[in-house]
Amino acid sequence: MSEYVEHAASGSSVGRVEKKFFTFAEPPRPLIVESGKALGPVTLAYETYGELDADAGNAVLVLHALSGDSHAAGYYDKSDPKPGWWDLMIGPGKPIDTDRYFVICANVIGGCMGSTGPSSPDPATGKPYGLTFPVITIGDMVRAQKRLVEHLGIKKLLCAIGGSMGGMQVLEWAVRYPDMVRSAVPLATTTKHSALAIAFNEVARQAIMADPKWNCGNYYDGEKPGHGLAVARMIGHITYLSDEAMRQKFDRRLQDRCEISFNFEEADFQVESYLRYQGQKFVDRFDANAFLYVTKAADYFNLEATHGAGSVVSAFAKAKCRFLVASFSSDWLYPTYQSRAMVQAMKKNGLDVSFVEIEAKWGHDAFLLPNSRLSGMIDSFLDRAAADAKKEAGHAL
Amino acid sequence: MSEYVEHAASGSSVGRVEKKFFTFAEPPRPLIVESGKALGPVTLAYETYGELDADAGNAVLVLHALSGDSHAAGYYDKSDPKPGWWDLMIGPGKPIDTDRYFVICANVIGGCMGSTGPSSPDPATGKPYGLTFPVITIGDMVRAQKRLVEHLGIKKLLCAIGGSMGGMQVLEWAVRYPDMVRSAVPLATTTKHSALAIAFNEVARQAIMADPKWNCGNYYDGEKPGHGLAVARMIGHITYLSDEAMRQKFDRRLQDRCEISFNFEEADFQVESYLRYQGQKFVDRFDANAFLYVTKAADYFNLEATHGAGSVVSAFAKAKCRFLVASFSSDWLYPTYQSRAMVQAMKKNGLDVSFVEIEAKWGHDAFLLPNSRLSGMIDSFLDRAAADAKKEAGHAL
Repeated sequence: MSEYVEHAASGSSVGRVEKKFFTFAEPPRPLIVESGKALGPVTLAYETYGELDADAGNAVLVLHALSGDSHAAGYYDKSDPKPGWWDLMIGPGKPIDTDRYFVICANVIGGCMGSTGPSSPDPATGKPYGLTFPVITIGDMVRAQKRLVEHLGIKKLLCAIGGSMGGMQVLEWAVRYPDMVRSAVPLATTTKHSALAIAFNEVARQAIMADPKWNCGNYYDGEKPGHGLAVARMIGHITYLSDEAMRQKFDRRLQDRCEISFNFEEADFQVESYLRYQGQKFVDRFDANAFLYVTKAADYFNLEATHGAGSVVSAFAKAKCRFLVASFSSDWLYPTYQSRAMVQAMKKNGLDVSFVEIEAKWGHDAFLLPNSRLSGMIDSFLDRAAADAKKEAGHAL
Repeated sequence: MSEYVEHAASGSSVGRVEKKFFTFAEPPRPLIVESGKALGPVTLAYETYGELDADAGNAVLVLHALSGDSHAAGYYDKSDPKPGWWDLMIGPGKPIDTDRYFVICANVIGGCMGSTGPSSPDPATGKPYGLTFPVITIGDMVRAQKRLVEHLGIKKLLCAIGGSMGGMQVLEWAVRYPDMVRSAVPLATTTKHSALAIAFNEVARQAIMADPKWNCGNYYDGEKPGHGLAVARMIGHITYLSDEAMRQKFDRRLQDRCEISFNFEEADFQVESYLRYQGQKFVDRFDANAFLYVTKAADYFNLEATHGAGSVVSAFAKAKCRFLVASFSSDWLYPTYQSRAMVQAMKKNGLDVSFVEIEAKWGHDAFLLPNSRLSGMIDSFLDRAAADAKKEAGHAL
């Protein structure tokens, strides 16, 4: 908690922000996604904070995780109860310092927070795509982001940064567009999902598809498959916390009661109540089909298969940027050994890599929580990238 | 695999076995369960293997886990594709040697494999109980087992042995009926569920209750809530395997295909196919309400709260038997630290305890798999308990 206070005190808010939209791939020139299908037009919902330099060399692209969105910092309205999802990291005087950097965050395609996804209207029918939306990949998400970055007049990102599924996009950026990325910060992530991570996503998808209201993805003119989506989210929330975090947060404490209930309706334990609450809250803000699409994209992600013919060393042979890789000691969804493997592959290619395993008890979610070590490392890493950029710009003159 | 061959070769089958039934607590003398409700009559489905000694001193009570049943060894019919669930441990010449010991295994109350549970007819209505069945506890299960043990003419068990929820029953036996237990083997278990273990069970229950066919537990005259139960089982199966076990068993191998499918219907990965298969298989054999009841009993289990006013040391002050405690290195459902805590509490009470953490990569499920170290330890432990019993019988003469 003291750390949080420290952070809240250092740096300030980017203030009021606005969701913007960029549309491309208008027919007859649709985006051909990795599966071979055509998608168009494609809209990205995005936000920017700070000012782009005259030479467009200070752009930091922030990539969000599974259920995230473009709203990474600030607030839409003064009455908003919460700021953007990474507000502790982004703002004036914060590690991703909007007094120095131009920060961009876009909602992924396949999602449901303003970018084109399964709940968007299919121009061919005027009705939501549902399952006729093409299955997309992390590569497709990144290709769409590239169009936005170019549209904003940026030739090379100062940094691509993100955690979890956001970290996968960081890795994809670094390997797919090596000349467009000066530095990259993949946090709490992996080059490919383990069987365990796939298993959790699969069960979550099955929970959604088991809900009769899901109706093969056609539910937009009726009731949502809320029960299935809530169960899916609960499964996710278990994987975001560690055993120790759950013990400290809930242990076996009862929820608003002195005795166990001896029934099934009420939540006996705080952890049950927490999960039910998280499940319900998610139903109010997220689309069930979008959950299927983004989890599938994460499961399909396989950096070495796509870019290295099965070798992670070969995949990183394509990268040119400097890396800061961080894992979290209690993250059992993407454990440290997975980060170590990518760091080794980067090093075998002679890439400049800093790696840290951060001692944190909060499990996978730790990358979103206040941590002075992480903040400090990101701060210095961006500083160094900015110095590199200045030097290079100087040479170019 | 070599270990398995070794085991298959050592010892033989108990052969053909039969499910028996014992009914007690007939009205007007029902069993008053821990919640205060009356339940009766109560039937236990059980099996026995081997012969009871003249002095009834060689009885080994085997306690089953969540989805287990009374069928621990042998086969019902020669055409059975599989023997009982712990056949590798129980039989002539096996660690729980039926040439020496009289082995008993009963289905838990609240279950659905022949013992009284929510799918049994309520004598008051003639229809299945459904949710009018009282919520029961591990203590209630054990109290019912005591009636069976007494009915079989046994005053003191040579050993109570079991893993996971079976291990909870072992601990409950040792503390609740100290004069009836000579030795106890709790495997891969805990004195109380962590928040993480409760979380998994709660999400599994929510998956069942989200299935409209569940219908508040009233589905016995219609379709089963199969989708919900399948999802619940898939969640369970994830917790039974370790990250490493999943990697070795499945990694990212595709299921009957060379390329990913880019759709949601088909299972792309072997791990997905495995989970779907396990889920479906479970629906064919298990009752959804019973799943709610047994998981709730496991979540409610709290040895120290029930028997030690919150102190695990005080709880074990009531025990008198010798213990063999085993945990498995890759079990993240009931990690070794939980076994260590119970062993410490036993030792603080001066109890005779052997403890081993078995190096095993298969996660929680390891206690059910062939392991020569575990087999050897159980073999010697029972041998010593039998020698104790003989010595005591000699003194008594």
